Order: sequence, then C-alpha cells, then structure tokens
Amino acid sequence: MSASAYDDSNVFAKILRGEMPAHKIYEDDETFAFMDIMPRGDGHCLVIPKAPARNLLDASTDSLAAVMRTTQKVARAAKEAFSADGLTIQQFNEPAGGQVVFHLHVHIIPRFEGVPLKPHTGEMADQELLAEQAEKIRACLA
Amino acid sequence: MSASAYDDSNVFAKILRGEMPAHKIYEDDETFAFMDIMPRGDGHCLVIPKAPARNLLDASTDSLAAVMRTTQKVARAAKEAFSADGLTIQQFNEPAGGQVVFHLHVHIIPRFEGVPLKPHTGEMADQELLAEQAEKIRACLA
Repeated sequence: MSASAYDDSNVFAKILRGEMPAHKIYEDDETFAFMDIMPRGDGHCLVIPKAPARNLLDASTDSLAAVMRTTQKVARAAKEAFSADGLTIQQFNEPAGGQVVFHLHVHIIPRFEGVPLKPHTGEMADQELLAEQAEKIRACLA
Repeated sequence: MSASAYDDSNVFAKILRGEMPAHKIYEDDETFAFMDIMPRGDGHCLVIPKAPARNLLDASTDSLAAVMRTTQKVARAAKEAFSADGLTIQQFNEPAGGQVVFHLHVHIIPRFEGVPLKPHTGEMADQELLAEQAEKIRACLA
C-alpha cells in the first residue's frame, strides 16, 4: 500500500542523516530526541527511531520499545527542567490522525496548571530559545 | 512524592481486579485493552499495564514496552475494524497533562478524514454500542 510506504526524503530522515540541523537533546543507537521547531508549549520535544518507520503501524516492536524508553527518559528530564506540573504525550498516524512528517515520532509536551496547549500556528520558534531549552533538558538527563 | 504515588483504588485497577466491568478487547500477561466508556470517536479504546504504574513517569521499562506492543496490535486492529484513515495516540500524565484516572493508560483513537475529535463531554456511551465495537476490533486481531 503506497499510503504506508516509508519515504526517506522526510525532514526527520534528513536530520538523522545530518542533512538538516536540529536542537539535539539525546541520542543512542536506536533513537534520537530533539526540540520541535513549532512547539505547542515550552520544552516541546520529539523522539524518533533511527530505523525507518512511517508511524506506529509499521514500526518494529524493538524500535517502538526503544522509542518509548527514550520518551520516558526525556519526559522525566523535561518535566524536571521546566518544573512542569504534567506532560502530554501524543503520537499521530497518517494525515487523518494528525501526522505531518512521515517518520514515526512521539511528542513530549511539558504542561502547566491552567496553561492550554498553544494552537498549531505553523510558525517557527526562535532558534536561540530552542537551543537554550534543549540545553536545559540535556542538563536534567541522568 | 505523594503526587506520584500509585493508589490502587482507581477505576482501572478495579477493572483489572474484576471489581468493575469493561468491554475487553485483548489481554496478555502484562497488558489489558478495553473500550473507553467516554469515547472521543468510534472505536476509542485504551491499553493499560497490569503492573501498577501511575503514568509514564514511574512505569518500568519492560511494562512500558509491553504496553506499546499491545498498543500497536490493537491500533492495527482498530484501524482495520473501522476502516479508519488514521489513528491518534495520546497518553496523559498528571492533571495538568490531561490525566484523570491515575493508572498508566494509552488512548487509541481511530480517525477519519474531516472528522474532528469529539469534545470531552463526560457522558457515557451506549453500552451495547461499546460491546459491538469491542467485538469488531477483537475480530480484527491477528
């Protein structure tokens, strides 16, 4: 089915190949974590597998387990870094499910009492601010 | 920290102990999947670990991996059962993150082109409809 095929010209594949920059938070053999450049809140970051996968539907079980291991690690660090009250985790599959970039990714969004998620504006955040936030989360990784 | 303590009087712990009913979809040694009784769309279901965990922050790595393995399995079946165009996966941590029941759970919501998520109304869905939907998803589990 062509709708579920992996296309390695997507932005996250380019980041993994070093063809595009990213504000890196964490990396291991199987996963990579970095700042979302269109954040819906302070500290909004993403975790992706290095292995090609379009989304949850075609990922390998091992790759998915590695993504969640990193998601937990980065979520704990992000919560601490921003003294957040909670975290919202989202993962979108196919356009109807909210997916825009077709490489599996998990959203980690620190949340604060009384602060709603910012809408998707399509506007890029300030790069210096993102660099600072990435550093702040990195500093809290055990 | 008392905010992160697990309290086994929550509704999902009661379901796991058989003290409350649920429209079961799938069960294995580590996980349990069932219909959300306040669905935000057709086929909205939940996956929980059997091991006690308040949310993503305190779950064991193994339990989390098992939850995601079941999430993938049930997501594929739900997509097929409802001929959905996509899926939205959500996981909430602490009240500020959207969490209401304090036992780790992953939301699986089948999505359809042009159909927004229903708002949280707090209204229970028709039990017969939920039973039918659970049966429909079960039939698509490999």
